[in-house]
Amino acid sequence: MPYADIVTALAILQFVWFGVQVSQARGKYGVHAPAVTGNEVFDRYFRVQQNTLELLIAFIPGLYLFGHYFNPLWGAGLGVVYLIGRQIYSMSYVKDPKSRGAGFGLSVLPTLILLLSGLIGAVMRLAGH
Amino acid sequence: MPYADIVTALAILQFVWFGVQVSQARGKYGVHAPAVTGNEVFDRYFRVQQNTLELLIAFIPGLYLFGHYFNPLWGAGLGVVYLIGRQIYSMSYVKDPKSRGAGFGLSVLPTLILLLSGLIGAVMRLAGH
Amino acid sequence: MPYADIVTALAILQFVWFGVQVSQARGKYGVHAPAVTGNEVFDRYFRVQQNTLELLIAFIPGLYLFGHYFNPLWGAGLGVVYLIGRQIYSMSYVKDPKSRGAGFGLSVLPTLILLLSGLIGAVMRLAGH
Repeated sequence: MPYADIVTALAILQFVWFGVQVSQARGKYGVHAPAVTGNEVFDRYFRVQQNTLELLIAFIPGLYLFGHYFNPLWGAGLGVVYLIGRQIYSMSYVKDPKSRGAGFGLSVLPTLILLLSGLIGAVMRLAGH
Repeated sequence: MPYADIVTALAILQFVWFGVQVSQARGKYGVHAPAVTGNEVFDRYFRVQQNTLELLIAFIPGLYLFGHYFNPLWGAGLGVVYLIGRQIYSMSYVKDPKSRGAGFGLSVLPTLILLLSGLIGAVMRLAGH
Repeated sequence: MPYADIVTALAILQFVWFGVQVSQARGKYGVHAPAVTGNEVFDRYFRVQQNTLELLIAFIPGLYLFGHYFNPLWGAGLGVVYLIGRQIYSMSYVKDPKSRGAGFGLSVLPTLILLLSGLIGAVMRLAGH
């Protein structure tokens, strides 16, 4: 499934990028390892990365389940929405945590659609449809 | 492997549900983003979610390795034990962190069985058995 | 892909081992759940585990993408470098967080090579090469 593979790799690279930003924020705001708190702006970068990790564990399996039981190209389309949503989430969270809702929804929603569709597809397959 | 796919989707949805509970606890106990500490009960909900994330990265690959080298249906059976164990873990941890042992074991044990069996299966395949 | 499967299982077991060390450090340094801070040495063990989780979500998909589009055996070779790098990372981080660079690089670099190669392989496949 090259479509799902490409979106997976891009989603992980986006996550790696959020990690680079956390690392840069460590230097900029003087939060030295092993500490992960101590500065409010650093905390925002860190939470963006952590929340994205929590979402990736749902997004990646969802993408392959959807691609397997339905359509890899449509799955990749939902994946592009996720990628854009996460980018908006990251930028708005760092600016003001209270404004993170839109980007959050735009990345969580496609993840849930992929996952629930995949679940339905697998159950239907078992039921012989 | 529809059996493994269904259990994977359910395990992720359970994790999403733990995330919803963290979000609700944020409001209830006044822990506002980007903070992730500040109230003992909130901390419990948050640790349940984080510990489940740590376990999912082992459980999902283990489920597919076991299903591939041994039996997808038996793998799914161990997966159901995991799902019940995590539910017990979540409820007991929130009530009293000291009581989390049973649910912890009941979800970690099937995960380790899946993973170690998968490792053994892959080594045996390479060895030509 | 038994090669990728074996390396995946080993990388997860290494992560489980880091989790056991966190658990032991809880007792040794008196950091009781749900707390995840309170002692500098405990913090180091905890950060090793958390950072490895962040890396695994990139490493495992990277390993399979590389194996699928290029060569599973070479992918497993890069995986062995990752495993050694993570072990060095863990030991040096606990001794002195400032010395964690070498082990960090030795595990992040193979992960990025696997992931970027996998992305290139998937794009080339789509392009018909």
